[in-house]
Amino acid sequence: MGKEVKVLGAWPSPFVMRPRIALHLKSIEYDFIEETMQPKSELLLKSNPVHKKIPVLIHNDKPVCESLVIVQYVDEAFSSGPSILPSDPYDRAIQRFWAAYIDDKWFPNLQGVAKAQTDEARAAALEQTSEGLSLLEDAFVKCSKGKPFFSGDNIGYLDIALGCYLGWLRVSEKMNNVKLLTEDKTPNLLAWSERFSAADAVKDYMPETNKLMEFAKIIMARFKAAASN
Amino acid sequence: MGKEVKVLGAWPSPFVMRPRIALHLKSIEYDFIEETMQPKSELLLKSNPVHKKIPVLIHNDKPVCESLVIVQYVDEAFSSGPSILPSDPYDRAIQRFWAAYIDDKWFPNLQGVAKAQTDEARAAALEQTSEGLSLLEDAFVKCSKGKPFFSGDNIGYLDIALGCYLGWLRVSEKMNNVKLLTEDKTPNLLAWSERFSAADAVKDYMPETNKLMEFAKIIMARFKAAASN
Repeated sequence: MGKEVKVLGAWPSPFVMRPRIALHLKSIEYDFIEETMQPKSELLLKSNPVHKKIPVLIHNDKPVCESLVIVQYVDEAFSSGPSILPSDPYDRAIQRFWAAYIDDKWFPNLQGVAKAQTDEARAAALEQTSEGLSLLEDAFVKCSKGKPFFSGDNIGYLDIALGCYLGWLRVSEKMNNVKLLTEDKTPNLLAWSERFSAADAVKDYMPETNKLMEFAKIIMARFKAAASN
Repeated sequence: MGKEVKVLGAWPSPFVMRPRIALHLKSIEYDFIEETMQPKSELLLKSNPVHKKIPVLIHNDKPVCESLVIVQYVDEAFSSGPSILPSDPYDRAIQRFWAAYIDDKWFPNLQGVAKAQTDEARAAALEQTSEGLSLLEDAFVKCSKGKPFFSGDNIGYLDIALGCYLGWLRVSEKMNNVKLLTEDKTPNLLAWSERFSAADAVKDYMPETNKLMEFAKIIMARFKAAASN
């Protein structure tokens, strides 16, 4: 018999890392169901008919979709383990603000690096990604108050929101032969990125950079084909 | 001396309605500071340096930005009045899911109607807006469980998330001489839209359709000028 919690996902997806880290923090066992998307499984289409996207968390046969919605659900539905959102309403608001910024503004710039079909477009997207990281460096200093994570002593909501993109950030650095997280401009965020990636709740789900780069090359070939049509 | 809660906003903004309704539900008095945006005020630039957008809620001199983040903050920071989010974690997740759908997918289609520069583009945007309303009709039936609002007996998070767009939806219907909420396709959502607009916590902030239409014509002229450049 399967477990009462299931996650539909795929290893290269930054969004799928989010529920996995949240469930690890809460010490919840679950079945991970690898979704190949070729074609999309009946279970995925039934569980997320609106977006048809991973991740989906299924808890007692009820689906929850959208990665940050899932992380908040895991925090609220399982009282075991540490809280993922801070307890103070203002701290919660600040973490939600930056998580929305990361998904709505910063990550599209990082995607823009991979989608760029000219050197100029690529340079502009790299610059925007870098500027966003400077804002996030400031946010880290304010949120962490000298502690190791955005959330203080432990990994929390905003750590998960940004940390899930670190694999793709490293791929972008490597493929473009640049450093986006640097000792010079983002020293705190650079140190955080290493702590986050090595943490028990994270290390098994953080994709290995070279393996992810091979996958990225396939995606980028698709972007190129789409751009030339 | 001013009140400890301030809202920076402007009357035509659907996003500004959200914190106003939330504060009304919680019976919190506040100063409303009309932001003309020409130019943007020092207070706005200082309070929301990342996006430079309204609304901003300022509570004891600390700013909170992004309308849905503010609504959740109001719910968590003020224990007076009814809860805005449901108490059950699964119900909360469902409301957060649909609120994200409304902002990320549905509203861009409604904006697409106003931005369209050809009849074909306008018809496509109207069709997409209408399809989204059919999904939201189903969501209403499931969430409300026969009660007057998405949240049951009282206005809650998802009511606020969708309801703030009703003024703009009506403008879109009137300018294009179509009905997007109908007895035929979306009977429950149509009845809900009337109940929501007439509610005590809402009616003072819901813009009058003809007044909003005059404002919409100015915005659409800007879209047209931008498209022809």
